[in-house]
Amino acid sequence: MVSTCSFTFFHDIFLSVFLPPFCSLPLALSSFLPLSQIIKCKAAIAWEANKPLSIEEVEVAPPKDHEVRIQIIATALCHSDAHILHPQFEGGVFPVILGHEAAGIVESIGPGVTNFKPGDKVIPLYAPQCGKCKFCLSPRTNFCGKLKHFKNPMGDQKLMEDGTSRFTCKGKPIYHFMGTSTFSQYTVVSDVNLAKLEDDANLERVCLLGCAFSTGYGAVINNAKVTPGSTCAIFGLGGVGLSAVMGCKASGASQIIVVDINSEKFTKAKALGATDCLNPKDLDKPIQEVIVEMTNGGVDFAFECVGGAKIMRAALDSVTVGWGVCTIIGVNVGDNGLNVSAMELLMGRTLTGTSFGGWKGVTSVPKLAADYKNKKLDLDALVTHTLPFDKVNEAFDLMYQGKRFKMLQTKPSNPTLD
Amino acid sequence: MVSTCSFTFFHDIFLSVFLPPFCSLPLALSSFLPLSQIIKCKAAIAWEANKPLSIEEVEVAPPKDHEVRIQIIATALCHSDAHILHPQFEGGVFPVILGHEAAGIVESIGPGVTNFKPGDKVIPLYAPQCGKCKFCLSPRTNFCGKLKHFKNPMGDQKLMEDGTSRFTCKGKPIYHFMGTSTFSQYTVVSDVNLAKLEDDANLERVCLLGCAFSTGYGAVINNAKVTPGSTCAIFGLGGVGLSAVMGCKASGASQIIVVDINSEKFTKAKALGATDCLNPKDLDKPIQEVIVEMTNGGVDFAFECVGGAKIMRAALDSVTVGWGVCTIIGVNVGDNGLNVSAMELLMGRTLTGTSFGGWKGVTSVPKLAADYKNKKLDLDALVTHTLPFDKVNEAFDLMYQGKRFKMLQTKPSNPTLD
Ligand SMILES: NC(=O)c1ccc[n+]([C@@H]2O[C@H](COP(=O)([O-])OP(=O)(O)OC[C@H]3O[C@@H](n4cnc5c(N)ncnc54)[C@H](O)[C@@H]3O)[C@@H](O)[C@H]2O)c1
Ligand SMILES: NC(=O)c1ccc[n+]([C@@H]2O[C@H](COP(=O)([O-])OP(=O)(O)OC[C@H]3O[C@@H](n4cnc5c(N)ncnc54)[C@H](O)[C@@H]3O)[C@@H](O)[C@H]2O)c1
Ligand SMILES: [Zn+2]
Ligand SMILES: [Zn+2]
Ligand SMILES: [Zn+2]
Ligand SMILES: [Zn+2]
Repeated sequence: MVSTCSFTFFHDIFLSVFLPPFCSLPLALSSFLPLSQIIKCKAAIAWEANKPLSIEEVEVAPPKDHEVRIQIIATALCHSDAHILHPQFEGGVFPVILGHEAAGIVESIGPGVTNFKPGDKVIPLYAPQCGKCKFCLSPRTNFCGKLKHFKNPMGDQKLMEDGTSRFTCKGKPIYHFMGTSTFSQYTVVSDVNLAKLEDDANLERVCLLGCAFSTGYGAVINNAKVTPGSTCAIFGLGGVGLSAVMGCKASGASQIIVVDINSEKFTKAKALGATDCLNPKDLDKPIQEVIVEMTNGGVDFAFECVGGAKIMRAALDSVTVGWGVCTIIGVNVGDNGLNVSAMELLMGRTLTGTSFGGWKGVTSVPKLAADYKNKKLDLDALVTHTLPFDKVNEAFDLMYQGKRFKMLQTKPSNPTLD
Repeated sequence: MVSTCSFTFFHDIFLSVFLPPFCSLPLALSSFLPLSQIIKCKAAIAWEANKPLSIEEVEVAPPKDHEVRIQIIATALCHSDAHILHPQFEGGVFPVILGHEAAGIVESIGPGVTNFKPGDKVIPLYAPQCGKCKFCLSPRTNFCGKLKHFKNPMGDQKLMEDGTSRFTCKGKPIYHFMGTSTFSQYTVVSDVNLAKLEDDANLERVCLLGCAFSTGYGAVINNAKVTPGSTCAIFGLGGVGLSAVMGCKASGASQIIVVDINSEKFTKAKALGATDCLNPKDLDKPIQEVIVEMTNGGVDFAFECVGGAKIMRAALDSVTVGWGVCTIIGVNVGDNGLNVSAMELLMGRTLTGTSFGGWKGVTSVPKLAADYKNKKLDLDALVTHTLPFDKVNEAFDLMYQGKRFKMLQTKPSNPTLD
């Protein structure tokens, strides 16, 4: 049932899970099911930290007010899914259905939903866009007032807005993850956490707009606003880092220095625009010293796409005095983060961060999908392998071994009904 | 010989030392001294950390290539002068002549100096502006490539560019401080560390442009770029913080929240534009929580004008998710600085800093002096007391007691010749 790999780069980029057909009900039928129908389907449940996920049968309740139930067609694995399983991750709750980088088809809508109808192709968004709050009304941010945990985006949206879950398994309620929970054949999201696509969208590619691509590319374009001719350093060449390389290239950066402990990633990075590739393991001094020397004082822009105090420090050290901007994208788990002295900031360095690359998802993701269709964006470059959904733990294992992001694929799935 | 206080606010703002006449040679004479003449005069020397300064006779060598020797007419005390005396300050060297917020008159010039002549009124600048390096040529920063210690502006310019000192005392060379060393009747600075004033400049006021005012006001105007209608929080109401209040007022901020542990500072802050005054000692919860509640989620801009890990944390916590900018101005000594997690940055907070308020000093300070003359800027508001130069330790003591920044005044001084 496992398809052959469509691409077989060594520097595997992401996992996209195409859900297996657990039953034989034709897809079209589900659109006509009464609203109150519970769907029984398969999902990957994280019962506790530091343990493999387990594929279970779950019940997915119908969408309530302003909610949409979606059949997931393709989902990729992002490193953030792994962080939550880390025993030291603060704010993790179990049992939970992970997954947040996906594309699917609307199965049913709850009362009050006006922007979506069954059959619509969609991308679930962990960054909501209500369109009404002071943040949504400002062009300066993609933050939305629907988020409540101002210091922990990954600990937010564990339940739907009414404070309950739409998932149960073995009689227990299961937590949502970042309002998306795409490691399930069916999920329920709020209608402000959903982007609508054209009918001809290639879900097996645009699922990457749900996180990695939008984040890395947007960090460069929207957050740091890299200027033509500038020098950039990108730490980490996963889905996020490679997308940042594409952003720097598109912005006209004159030097794009990439850093990874896995040199196999460099071929792809070069193809996408990297000018200099550095593996800290091959160097006899700290990576930041090498970058500062190479650039006669430091880069204009650094992007931290790994996560962790040490790499945050290297990234900040790599930017020039005067105007250097260090954008943090990676999430640090199990350490205290970056220790910043006033002095280093006084010299004109800026430290900032991004969630979802600064995109207001509801309005921007459809445009990015159109750009992919019009060949302005290269999502194909990020795809390596496909695997069936029930191999999700293998994908995690590969990620932990540094061979992260197998793409998984089977035929589209259908619901199992109660 | 001590003049009566011109202002007697309780919330004393700064110390301006007007040097006493140690000899009777008329000022005009000094202009005609041969270039090679060494000047003997009085200076306040810090022989070691954590000890009072001592007023000593020093020899001030003539200016070398591109150097200017200046008679200091008025100098104020900034908290940075105190930091260097802290035993845990990294990069402090002794013996040293402190002082960096001053105004004076050119006494003589070295070879190659074209922009200054004896008799010119000037302000020494710890932030150089060579006008030629990539930083000086960029509008994005006031950093100058003449600075070498990219992580410690206060540890830079301890010697003149040729690697030697112009000061000796008891046969020992004495270190310069930040290229200015204004706690001396005469000092030598590089011609790129000097701003030229109009002949009618009031040196007893514009000396404040040498640090406190320019820093606090510029942090708001140039670095954070506070926008009309925005909400601001200012931590610390010394010379820097009160100047930041003026900057916020001038920028049209709608809410200016000020924080100080000394409530006596609030009268002046209110007069300058503060809308809300908070003393952390009067509150039963952390100051950042109070500010976040008052502003329904945090301010748009925070300015840290005290120094120290705890206040850096409070300032960062006080800015809103989405677009909040926290500008660090205070210098932390004796602690590790601020511990920043990726998560809090991902939500759209930005952490940055400023040295000298982002002004390119050579070109901007003359304009600020003109703005003072034209009553567009209120430097008088920052002046409290005047004391004679030899009371400099009393001024430090008052600062340590929290009654910081007595202004000191006597008649202008003249040189003692060899
Ligand atoms: N801020 C956001 O909105 C956002 C969105 C997505 C992902 N993230 C975070 O971004 C980070 C990257 O995510 P990803 O999915 O691209 O991860 P990934 O695992 O696919 O890629 C990480 C890359 O970093 C490399 N790496 C590991 N240690 C390194 C080191 N010490 N120095 C240099 N390179 C090193 C790995 O070899 C790998 O190529 C994660 O922390 C993730 O949680 C944040
Ligand atoms: N970045 C720069 O270019 C630059 C320039 C000048 C000064 N500085 C630094 O700025 C800081 C302020 O300098 P200054 O000369 O205005 O100092 P100051 O001593 O005149 O003022 C500090 C103020 O902070 C208040 N304060 C002390 N502890 C506090 C607390 N816990 N909470 C709230 N308020 C508190 C004091 O009561 C005082 O009013 C110092 O750290 C100095 O080194 C930086
Ligand atoms: Zn992600
Ligand atoms: Zn909103
Ligand atoms: Zn100062
Ligand atoms: Zn310069």
